[in-house]
Amino acid sequence: MTDRHLLDFWFEFASTYSYPAAMRIAPLAKTRSIKVRWRPFLLGPIFKAQGWDNSPFNLYPAKGRYMWRDLERICAALGLPFVQPDPFPQNTLLASRVAMAALMQGWGEDYSLAIYRAEFGEGRNIAEPATIASVLSALGHNAEQVIQQAQSDAIKAGLRAQTETAQRLGIFGAPSFVTADGELFWGNDRLEAALDWAKR
Amino acid sequence: MTDRHLLDFWFEFASTYSYPAAMRIAPLAKTRSIKVRWRPFLLGPIFKAQGWDNSPFNLYPAKGRYMWRDLERICAALGLPFVQPDPFPQNTLLASRVAMAALMQGWGEDYSLAIYRAEFGEGRNIAEPATIASVLSALGHNAEQVIQQAQSDAIKAGLRAQTETAQRLGIFGAPSFVTADGELFWGNDRLEAALDWAKR
Repeated sequence: MTDRHLLDFWFEFASTYSYPAAMRIAPLAKTRSIKVRWRPFLLGPIFKAQGWDNSPFNLYPAKGRYMWRDLERICAALGLPFVQPDPFPQNTLLASRVAMAALMQGWGEDYSLAIYRAEFGEGRNIAEPATIASVLSALGHNAEQVIQQAQSDAIKAGLRAQTETAQRLGIFGAPSFVTADGELFWGNDRLEAALDWAKR
Repeated sequence: MTDRHLLDFWFEFASTYSYPAAMRIAPLAKTRSIKVRWRPFLLGPIFKAQGWDNSPFNLYPAKGRYMWRDLERICAALGLPFVQPDPFPQNTLLASRVAMAALMQGWGEDYSLAIYRAEFGEGRNIAEPATIASVLSALGHNAEQVIQQAQSDAIKAGLRAQTETAQRLGIFGAPSFVTADGELFWGNDRLEAALDWAKR
């Protein structure tokens, strides 16, 4: 396996279509022998640069109504539990910082899947530190300690830098996938195409 | 074949992803025995209702840059010729009125495919009456006569009504697909899902 067969998975916990993408990516990448690098980032600053102060699914109600129905159909087809989160979108700053810390410690993928499941599978509010703490505890981690690590200056700066990198790569939404040769793919429905490109 | 197995294909000639969708829909529908009804409409009034006075691909440059590259990849994979049209988007009012007339006369599908090919396959400007006339002539029609028919009050009102219907159905972009039981699917990448739903 060379670096050529590496795919960066750019995700944001508030992003609805990132949920099925996160659930699907590991098995699909495995069958193609592609290494996936999980890269959390924040859509807020990127949306702000596009003039949006809210999710486009809230700003454009017809698009929003469609997206919830579409996501419901997609989850049903995949056999994934789905509950429309309320409020939407949720503040994902702490959850994302914890993901940065967890990824550095090698268990970030399990944590990220558990956060997506809590938010979109169970309708829990992942903006609440208590929700994050209970996800961490269920995974066998010391929640208080991890949350403290996640609020270090290094992690805060790391997440900021990662969001700036996303923007520099031309990323404008989530999920996004970037291959080693710089091809950008956007959306859960582009996951297979991104993996196929990474395999070339 | 019952009405249950009917799929409405809502398309707009200025819509980039409608090009591969238009090229793909007939063979895919045929293998599933689904009847497709081609329904041209105008995105302009729908975008205006969302506060946009231009294509979102122009209003949001990062999204636009991505779309052109994505479309290029999609066309390459399908073996479809692709030239980025300039200007973009093009005024599609006359081309759409001609489509309404042609569909009533039973040759609207061939005409629509030829218009998409001219615009996105050859980079011609379909806002020009001369381009539309040459497409009509190449299909063996009396261009002058058809263009005159297309500017009748009935056709003008018909296209306006169809655009209002699209909006009422919750359509906010193109291509869109609507099944007989009212399920809406948006985007070239949802064509198969729409056909599968129509087949249920």
